[in-house]
Amino acid sequence: MEIKNYLDEQRQLVEAAFERFIPMAEGDFNNHLEAMRYSLLAGGKRVRPILCLAAARSVGGRNVQDDNILPVACALECIHTYSLVHDDLPAMDNDDLRRGKATNHILYGEAGAILAGDGLLTWAFDLLSNPEYGNLDAEKKLLIIHCIARAAGSFGMVGGQVLDIASENTSFPFERLQTIHRSKTGALITASIMAGAIAAGADQKQLTALENYGMQIGLAFQIVDDLLNATATTEQLGKAAGSDAEHGKATYPAYFGIEETQKRAKQAVAEAKNCLVDFDDKARPLRLLADYIYTRSH
Amino acid sequence: MEIKNYLDEQRQLVEAAFERFIPMAEGDFNNHLEAMRYSLLAGGKRVRPILCLAAARSVGGRNVQDDNILPVACALECIHTYSLVHDDLPAMDNDDLRRGKATNHILYGEAGAILAGDGLLTWAFDLLSNPEYGNLDAEKKLLIIHCIARAAGSFGMVGGQVLDIASENTSFPFERLQTIHRSKTGALITASIMAGAIAAGADQKQLTALENYGMQIGLAFQIVDDLLNATATTEQLGKAAGSDAEHGKATYPAYFGIEETQKRAKQAVAEAKNCLVDFDDKARPLRLLADYIYTRSH
Repeated sequence: MEIKNYLDEQRQLVEAAFERFIPMAEGDFNNHLEAMRYSLLAGGKRVRPILCLAAARSVGGRNVQDDNILPVACALECIHTYSLVHDDLPAMDNDDLRRGKATNHILYGEAGAILAGDGLLTWAFDLLSNPEYGNLDAEKKLLIIHCIARAAGSFGMVGGQVLDIASENTSFPFERLQTIHRSKTGALITASIMAGAIAAGADQKQLTALENYGMQIGLAFQIVDDLLNATATTEQLGKAAGSDAEHGKATYPAYFGIEETQKRAKQAVAEAKNCLVDFDDKARPLRLLADYIYTRSH
Repeated sequence: MEIKNYLDEQRQLVEAAFERFIPMAEGDFNNHLEAMRYSLLAGGKRVRPILCLAAARSVGGRNVQDDNILPVACALECIHTYSLVHDDLPAMDNDDLRRGKATNHILYGEAGAILAGDGLLTWAFDLLSNPEYGNLDAEKKLLIIHCIARAAGSFGMVGGQVLDIASENTSFPFERLQTIHRSKTGALITASIMAGAIAAGADQKQLTALENYGMQIGLAFQIVDDLLNATATTEQLGKAAGSDAEHGKATYPAYFGIEETQKRAKQAVAEAKNCLVDFDDKARPLRLLADYIYTRSH
């Protein structure tokens, strides 16, 4: 299946880039750096870096060289990883298992995991602002940093996690679930796409189309995650299955049932692809990625 | 006493700027934003923002307007505050009291405090990269972001905190204490000064002099903190006195005794001022700030 090969190849590209852009575990801070690397290198689909690269290539242009985009892609994965490390903490979701491996705090202790997360988040901005990496204009780099910081922070991923925790074991209108999904998951996925597009020098029309694409696949991604959490086994997921229900979390299946939820995932994917009508074949990976998200759901 | 007036006036300038550059607690994320604001507005000497402003003014030039420097100054205080919120957590220093008030996790819970810290750290980079704030070149803004990210992260403040925790109740050579001080406290203090200097357009010679000044007052600051922790009361400190000894932390007084430690603080202050020999009277606040740090010690 073509998309599997594409995803494998892109994942390998991103993981090879970690060796260039993520510090080795050595020197005075070796234990801390090892804790950061442990979670970053513990696997994962690398969805955000791959979307960043695919969005940049869908625009094309002279900036779209791996050396310019990979530091941004790696920074996005640092931010995603830090969010997982902090979400897994005993004070939050209290998960022992992530991607089939012990979570960070199980190995490095709570303090070690909090600080590994802090280190990964800060390293993302170190990487994004590093004058030695990439040949993008300073203006573009700044726009990318601002786009990512806004999406990762209090009005995006961090704020969404706060809402998600506050909403456990409570009932609330569907609009609030949408707010949680958009901020907790959708914002960083959309920012991954926007960051790649900004790096490539996308024009305003392209940026708007890609932003809408991002919001739709962010939605699809979260709906499918909810579905998988409800229907897959722990072995399939590499993390605790059914944990949403156990934590009393509102999810799409809880509102709409499995069948209607699958329909909504399909619809979001179709709308995502529809945003790309004015893009040529360079956007093919973005179209395949949208389809791929849906195929995970059943 | 002149320095007290100066510090009061600068502190008020910084705190007024929070109302412009820190989000209000409203909207979907109001509880989370309130938790961030609680710790940010809970008082404090605002040493890092004041050093940033003073360093910029010591260089002078057309960029040195409050509107250009204050977003950077506020970002530094966001980072300092996040580090306190995370340091106070039960998994770290487990402190209930900070600046005479309940610590963040006492009021907002552990998850709330972890996320308030994450939000403050991310907001710092949002602020630093916001195209609407300040009229600095994109190149300068990027250099400032990189300088601050490097100092705040795994090779600076975060790494230093990991070492500090790992070193509790162990004995180790004095060199390690220096590494902890330099990374945990010194790096962000030095970066505060460098960020102001970069914003002002300092030349290489000025940057080097100010970096050395920053390292010396960072050292003095930490030595005096150690001294105060050993000699002042909880009421004087607004946080638990004697907590270093209680946590089995190595400190300057533990290595050298009170008297020799005071001597070393005095020496660091003298060396800091010595770095400013080529600066004119615009650097007077930096000289006064160095003296002020020493006067706190007795």
